[in-house]
Amino acid sequence: MAGTFISFEGPDGAGKTSVIKAVNEALGNQLGAEQVLLTREPGGDRIAEQIRDVLFDDQNTNMDSRTEALLFAAARRQHVVQDIKPALHEGKVVLSDRYVDSSVAYQGGGRHLGIDDIWELNEFAIHDLLPALTIYLDVPSELGLQRINEHRADQVNRLDREKLAFHRRVRQAFLTLAKRHPHRIVVIDASAELTTVIQEVESLIHSRFPTLLPK
Amino acid sequence: MAGTFISFEGPDGAGKTSVIKAVNEALGNQLGAEQVLLTREPGGDRIAEQIRDVLFDDQNTNMDSRTEALLFAAARRQHVVQDIKPALHEGKVVLSDRYVDSSVAYQGGGRHLGIDDIWELNEFAIHDLLPALTIYLDVPSELGLQRINEHRADQVNRLDREKLAFHRRVRQAFLTLAKRHPHRIVVIDASAELTTVIQEVESLIHSRFPTLLPK
Repeated sequence: MAGTFISFEGPDGAGKTSVIKAVNEALGNQLGAEQVLLTREPGGDRIAEQIRDVLFDDQNTNMDSRTEALLFAAARRQHVVQDIKPALHEGKVVLSDRYVDSSVAYQGGGRHLGIDDIWELNEFAIHDLLPALTIYLDVPSELGLQRINEHRADQVNRLDREKLAFHRRVRQAFLTLAKRHPHRIVVIDASAELTTVIQEVESLIHSRFPTLLPK
Repeated sequence: MAGTFISFEGPDGAGKTSVIKAVNEALGNQLGAEQVLLTREPGGDRIAEQIRDVLFDDQNTNMDSRTEALLFAAARRQHVVQDIKPALHEGKVVLSDRYVDSSVAYQGGGRHLGIDDIWELNEFAIHDLLPALTIYLDVPSELGLQRINEHRADQVNRLDREKLAFHRRVRQAFLTLAKRHPHRIVVIDASAELTTVIQEVESLIHSRFPTLLPK
């Protein structure tokens, strides 16, 4: 595949949305907006969005952790087949807000289902399609939760409301994944000012893919 | 767990619905209707039914086979946790119209995803909960399709419309599973008259679980 697949990971409150928006603009200015696909998980085509609705339905309080993991993997599969792969085949840059590492961190770590089991489950879903680069925006769990509560208390969803211990397990799992995939996953300190974080991310993309984003 | 879990498998057109109805009545007469849970897959609680709706939505024509397999496993997990396990803990008999073998046969065999991979995926979902007895109603694929077309052409769903070769692969996978699990899965010739098939099934349940269904 000729395109370039970059995923962005991290807890809510790490500034992920703002960072991706900035990267998307920078790449669009350089390559043309039509050469960049900005997407998010869970989501994608009609089927993936239907699965997203089941996952984030506030009435679904009795969802089992394994059901949740299977639904995230199902939405991901559809996203890969319908959106990510076609865009890569067309030579585009794909920026995905969350991908496989989120499942491993949230379900494997946060929900205690085990990093290895959730990785294996997702291998069935992604069938070898890993990003060329995964940018993990790391913040201490307390800071992430504090930022959520301050800035978007009206948009807090079912997963955000989990307790601090859950978010700490998620972070530990992300850091474990970063150690296991040291070339693919780069940890960025996202407790810094947003402009600093964006500069660091753009500099990283430049160093890995100089043709996409010149200095 | 004190209860007894029996699943019924086979293609549409094998008479599965009629057989389960008869067994449900016979067990209900013997044990009391409240001691028997009659259920079906995919389905169950609110979440499992939402997943069922995604699977059988006629507009979802571009659903990838792996997405489908993950969604069936997700619905199954929820069904196990919310319906099957609680009923077994209360000592009930659970009769399920389809269970794990259907996924292995339809997705593993029919959709070419591989019997072993789909079995493994479902092990994540069922976490060791296999039926004490699985009754596989076997008919030649041509006969199954002929019966569907004659009797309920108005209710044909997305999976029914697959071609004959698909249904033959499904049957082969069911027969392979029966060979791998010779004690759990019993193959019943369902090309016979319905009354004969029901007698054979009830006689089988009697011989396995004499306290549930006396002669």
